[in-house]
Amino acid sequence: MKYLITFSYDGSKYSGYQKQPKKRTIQNELEKVLTKINSNKKVTISASGRTDAGVHAYNQKAHFSLDNEFDLDKLKHSINSLIPDDIYIKNVTKVDDDFHARFSVKAKEYIYKINIGEYNPIEKDYIFQYNKELDIPEMEKALKYLEGTHDFKSFVKAKDIKEDTTRTIIKAKLIKDHNLITISLLGTGFMRYMVRNIVGMLIEIGEGKRKSEDLIDILNQKDRTKAGMCAKACGLYLNDVYYE
Amino acid sequence: MKYLITFSYDGSKYSGYQKQPKKRTIQNELEKVLTKINSNKKVTISASGRTDAGVHAYNQKAHFSLDNEFDLDKLKHSINSLIPDDIYIKNVTKVDDDFHARFSVKAKEYIYKINIGEYNPIEKDYIFQYNKELDIPEMEKALKYLEGTHDFKSFVKAKDIKEDTTRTIIKAKLIKDHNLITISLLGTGFMRYMVRNIVGMLIEIGEGKRKSEDLIDILNQKDRTKAGMCAKACGLYLNDVYYE
Repeated sequence: MKYLITFSYDGSKYSGYQKQPKKRTIQNELEKVLTKINSNKKVTISASGRTDAGVHAYNQKAHFSLDNEFDLDKLKHSINSLIPDDIYIKNVTKVDDDFHARFSVKAKEYIYKINIGEYNPIEKDYIFQYNKELDIPEMEKALKYLEGTHDFKSFVKAKDIKEDTTRTIIKAKLIKDHNLITISLLGTGFMRYMVRNIVGMLIEIGEGKRKSEDLIDILNQKDRTKAGMCAKACGLYLNDVYYE
Repeated sequence: MKYLITFSYDGSKYSGYQKQPKKRTIQNELEKVLTKINSNKKVTISASGRTDAGVHAYNQKAHFSLDNEFDLDKLKHSINSLIPDDIYIKNVTKVDDDFHARFSVKAKEYIYKINIGEYNPIEKDYIFQYNKELDIPEMEKALKYLEGTHDFKSFVKAKDIKEDTTRTIIKAKLIKDHNLITISLLGTGFMRYMVRNIVGMLIEIGEGKRKSEDLIDILNQKDRTKAGMCAKACGLYLNDVYYE
């Protein structure tokens, strides 16, 4: 039986999503628990994509197969009772054999949280502590330029480029709630560090180091060295994954 | 020179505020840094009160004396540059010799955060994960009964009673924002576990195990065994301390 889980996690205590020997990773923890549930027969899971160390998820998705058929709600509770409390299974469904949590993805939403108010030690692992004003209207203009289909080569490290770097950003927006700024990027796919590199450049636009129009040049130059810094992992959340 | 600092901290990584040998405590960290700033001559600080392990603070206050006079802003930056990043000095002022961060307190506000929505692993150390509905109007009625001057003996462990257990709650309120409930208690003084014991009982009222009127009996009985459970530390914040 093939199952799809929706789960959230606090990435601050993990060396990222992906399995790594001798490291605490989300995938390691999930596979340990699922293997136990599968009468100790090894279970491998496939997520919608990896998240890096320190990055969080509200609705990550992954599929796996178990030898037996389980009641979905009982399976959810079994996993949650065995998994560390900084990971939480929100939902379990059955999926067809040809479903793949990564290859079937139609769109993904990432959000990035920035505190422009006073430094807050309580949220330092969950919201990027920028702690200064940002030019919000200029950042919003830049977000508009991001929407559409572009070659995002300037936002990917050369060594991470394995394929075509063209992606579509369906919606790019910014929400300001008091001192909390949330940037949301909904797109067909994202490459490694792409969101953090885009946010890094948006921050440089927000602090007046660049103009929003510079984004057009940067996209055209297709050169990572032309774009800005990479924003810290702590503010980033995989917010949702969409299938058909 | 006598100084007063206002500071915030993430209590989840500390064995409480108060100095303890071989434990990581807020007071230990602050005294280490202040002693260094005071040319390695031992500095002792006095806070408005202790907070227990796992309890956070947005505006804790403490006084201490240094041999030399410092520019206030520079002193703030010096402490922040040396202290772990889960503690933050928000403000430094000079105070008179007869000021005492604990004995001069006129009122304190504690807040307690409860998530009545789905379990959220990302906020588990910062918001109590109750994850079920609560009867808010009934809890609000109980909060009204708390206001005024009462003997709070039913909300203090017998072994912690050293003195008169009468205190005044100036204002007791509840704010609901989507699935986040924040209970705020403003009072002249609080004894150990008093806020968490009150919140524990409010939760039992919210889940229908007790009625709001029961609170009057419980206060009258002056017996810890009559009141409810002690709420978890993670939801509690020392929000503010008021002087003259």
